Amino acid sequence: MYTPLQKESRAPATCFGSATTQDVGSSHQDGLERECPRNTDRKLPGLYGVGDPTAMFSSDSSCLSSRGKVIKWFWDSAEEGYRTYHMDQYDEDKNPSGIINLGTSENKLCFDLLSRRLSQSDMLRVEPSLLQYPDWRGHPFLREEVAKFLSYYCKSPAPLKPENVVVLNGGASVFSALATVLCEAGEAFLIPTPYYGAITQHVYLYGNVRLAFVYLDSEVTGLDTRPFQLTVEKLELALQGAKSEGVKVKGLILINPQNPLGNVYSPRELQEFLGFAARHKLHVIVDEVYMLSVFEESLGYRSVLGLERLPDPQRTHVMWATSKDFGMSGLRFGTLYTENRDVATAVASLCRYHGLSGLLQFQMAQLLRDRDWINQVYLPENHSRLKAAHTYVSGELRALGVPFLSGGAGFFLWVDLRKYLRQGTWEEEMVLWRRFLDSKVLLSFGKAFECKEPGWFRVIFADKAHRLRLGMQRLRRVLEGKSQEAEDIPPHQDPGEQH
Amino acid sequence: MYTPLQKESRAPATCFGSATTQDVGSSHQDGLERECPRNTDRKLPGLYGVGDPTAMFSSDSSCLSSRGKVIKWFWDSAEEGYRTYHMDQYDEDKNPSGIINLGTSENKLCFDLLSRRLSQSDMLRVEPSLLQYPDWRGHPFLREEVAKFLSYYCKSPAPLKPENVVVLNGGASVFSALATVLCEAGEAFLIPTPYYGAITQHVYLYGNVRLAFVYLDSEVTGLDTRPFQLTVEKLELALQGAKSEGVKVKGLILINPQNPLGNVYSPRELQEFLGFAARHKLHVIVDEVYMLSVFEESLGYRSVLGLERLPDPQRTHVMWATSKDFGMSGLRFGTLYTENRDVATAVASLCRYHGLSGLLQFQMAQLLRDRDWINQVYLPENHSRLKAAHTYVSGELRALGVPFLSGGAGFFLWVDLRKYLRQGTWEEEMVLWRRFLDSKVLLSFGKAFECKEPGWFRVIFADKAHRLRLGMQRLRRVLEGKSQEAEDIPPHQDPGEQH
Repeated sequence: MYTPLQKESRAPATCFGSATTQDVGSSHQDGLERECPRNTDRKLPGLYGVGDPTAMFSSDSSCLSSRGKVIKWFWDSAEEGYRTYHMDQYDEDKNPSGIINLGTSENKLCFDLLSRRLSQSDMLRVEPSLLQYPDWRGHPFLREEVAKFLSYYCKSPAPLKPENVVVLNGGASVFSALATVLCEAGEAFLIPTPYYGAITQHVYLYGNVRLAFVYLDSEVTGLDTRPFQLTVEKLELALQGAKSEGVKVKGLILINPQNPLGNVYSPRELQEFLGFAARHKLHVIVDEVYMLSVFEESLGYRSVLGLERLPDPQRTHVMWATSKDFGMSGLRFGTLYTENRDVATAVASLCRYHGLSGLLQFQMAQLLRDRDWINQVYLPENHSRLKAAHTYVSGELRALGVPFLSGGAGFFLWVDLRKYLRQGTWEEEMVLWRRFLDSKVLLSFGKAFECKEPGWFRVIFADKAHRLRLGMQRLRRVLEGKSQEAEDIPPHQDPGEQH
Repeated sequence: MYTPLQKESRAPATCFGSATTQDVGSSHQDGLERECPRNTDRKLPGLYGVGDPTAMFSSDSSCLSSRGKVIKWFWDSAEEGYRTYHMDQYDEDKNPSGIINLGTSENKLCFDLLSRRLSQSDMLRVEPSLLQYPDWRGHPFLREEVAKFLSYYCKSPAPLKPENVVVLNGGASVFSALATVLCEAGEAFLIPTPYYGAITQHVYLYGNVRLAFVYLDSEVTGLDTRPFQLTVEKLELALQGAKSEGVKVKGLILINPQNPLGNVYSPRELQEFLGFAARHKLHVIVDEVYMLSVFEESLGYRSVLGLERLPDPQRTHVMWATSKDFGMSGLRFGTLYTENRDVATAVASLCRYHGLSGLLQFQMAQLLRDRDWINQVYLPENHSRLKAAHTYVSGELRALGVPFLSGGAGFFLWVDLRKYLRQGTWEEEMVLWRRFLDSKVLLSFGKAFECKEPGWFRVIFADKAHRLRLGMQRLRRVLEGKSQEAEDIPPHQDPGEQH
């Protein structure tokens, strides 16, 4: 599923190396991850990407606490990309020369289907019990639907149990709560890179939990069969490395399907990684938010909840959300599934701060139980649209001679633009990113995913054809070194307008 | 507005004294605050009610971090009251001998009005922008409505600004976020007692922020004109006391209208308290969630946002929510208003974990802008129902010879049952509370509000007549020492069934 990578000039890999403040994330919106920190000169002491960020704000005169200043910094540092995009959003009619957003990982292909479903009369129920304080784990009727839904779509060997489900307002909250109840402040989770960078904030802002990176290479060496391949050996090495630097590792985070690589772990790999964690008594948080966005069936995706036997079920915690699979990141609905009752209860205790409206809980139960609509309308159409959009963007990139990775899952291609950097540095990566932005196309740069090699970019393809066309046109102009002009030149290939 | 208090036997007041684990709160649901910790034998080191709760869980073998264990403890400790009530809820038809809940502070009088309004067709709008990632501060259209709404109902001297508004999923989240961005871990807020006890968790669970109590007396002494009166002198004393014990105080929390006292601070008092805070460079969090639940107009309630001049606007942060004033605690909608842009931005940065559905944001904007419905339908009817219910419960208590406080705001009476304790101890307070629960009426005991005198209870009156009647009947039986029987005996007074 991936275009073989060309060897290009690249920066020296800084495994476990020093890190800028960017490393602790600076994303304002998902997918706009840390486009451009305002203060790139601020350096944090290197410690698996996260040092003591409070140290650099001590002289500030604001009314905030030192951690408050760090928390605010995460917002401010996303400003350039965020503000620029939001002040100048592309709109076909009102602002045709506005910015095309191929940076935020959202599925914009199915609003028609979703609007139609969510507007049906069965969605608006207002009952006293929905307006009163809920069970903070989520209304029982909803947890029951979630358990049934996950049993079905994760193909669990036995029915999953509603009492193992906790409902929260999105996946970000699941990370925040789990980090806090599983780790002491300053402890860490292992995470393979490149990874969805916002997780850095999710575990750090409230929980003060760090990430210890398992840096993966694009180059296929040793026994590897694909670029950026995770193996137990690499996990072992990273764990020992962290220990030797005095970092206490409490768990491992796996994203499956993977963001930004767009591929999946095989059941065998999953078992190996879970086995590694079990041997070291590590918790595993498995982020499966793209579980239903596998548009290439041949991938053989398998949820952890569908495995026959988990090596350490008490330390295996699975999250899912509607943000990606139902293209509703603004709906704020996420779930945790764990057999560990202590963990479920502790997370529930934090749910006062992660609660969602009773009216929404009712709507989500209605949606999740509507298997006919999901199976016969939504999923087939969604997958076919994802596939068409993927085909189009892949084709454009191939025509440009740009290598990329894509596994048939998710909304993104992981694109190798190293040959377009004058030098293999992070500064050059930023220069290229800013050239894209100046040319009115927003991408996510590799540093935001803690990629160890400068020059990789994530390109979102889950968007309407006319925006993709324009976005790819602008991207091509930048890569071909042309200024933004003559946007009426027809693109290489046209997927046709999607409905 | 209050029945003069009789002097009764009382426990020695433990100003800044030692505290049990209960002091750190154990509420599962609002108003079911800390009904009955399972492990009342666990003691925490005394430090303004909060010691180092992590110390007591170190030997536990669970998979949780030490803070995770504390967080879980807060859930477990609410179990007796919560589980008992939820397993045996009163239902007129299905479970007439079930528990009547006069413990949770919810307004159950207006579900008919709310259901009708929220079910109107203008409430169900599904647009792509509502399904996509929002501005985490809240959608601009909603922040604009909130600013207008607060300007109008708080009678602000100048229009309030949308950019000073942050929208979160409920008041609990406002406390959690503010505590984290204003204080370092271990620092404290001053708070007069008795107070809405769940705040203890809200500032502690994520933020690790403590409360330093300003203990108030029921006895009217010195220059005081009413029981539990807060004065600047008492604030000064408590602040000095905290300092002398090495506690760093960063701010003051004021609840206005007050919960559980049901009264309000006069504009002059407010100015004095704000002046005190300004002199000491303390932040002030003003919790105004009962702002529109003042059913005695003669009280002359004034929001802080309605004051002509704030002594320190950069350190004054006001929260409001729909939970109480619109009887929708299950809707999870709260707001922060602050002129301090750094604080607003830092809180916004945490809003990924406190976000609410775009669909709900649309609904709330529709509701808040419907001034006709609010002013001509909802508020008059709500206030008249609150008044009738208040009159009924007050009458019942007077007939029983039970003293109580009630200021004409909120949903509760603060009831003095000290004469019913065999000894003035917390154990005896629990015994009486459990006798109520055994007789199928759930109340909140004074310890949950950090009242310094055992024997006070909060009784909710914002409920339908038939439930109030039965609840008061059961309460009377307990106080008269009778077992639960002959529930058909007519009560002292009947408010008539409300619509």
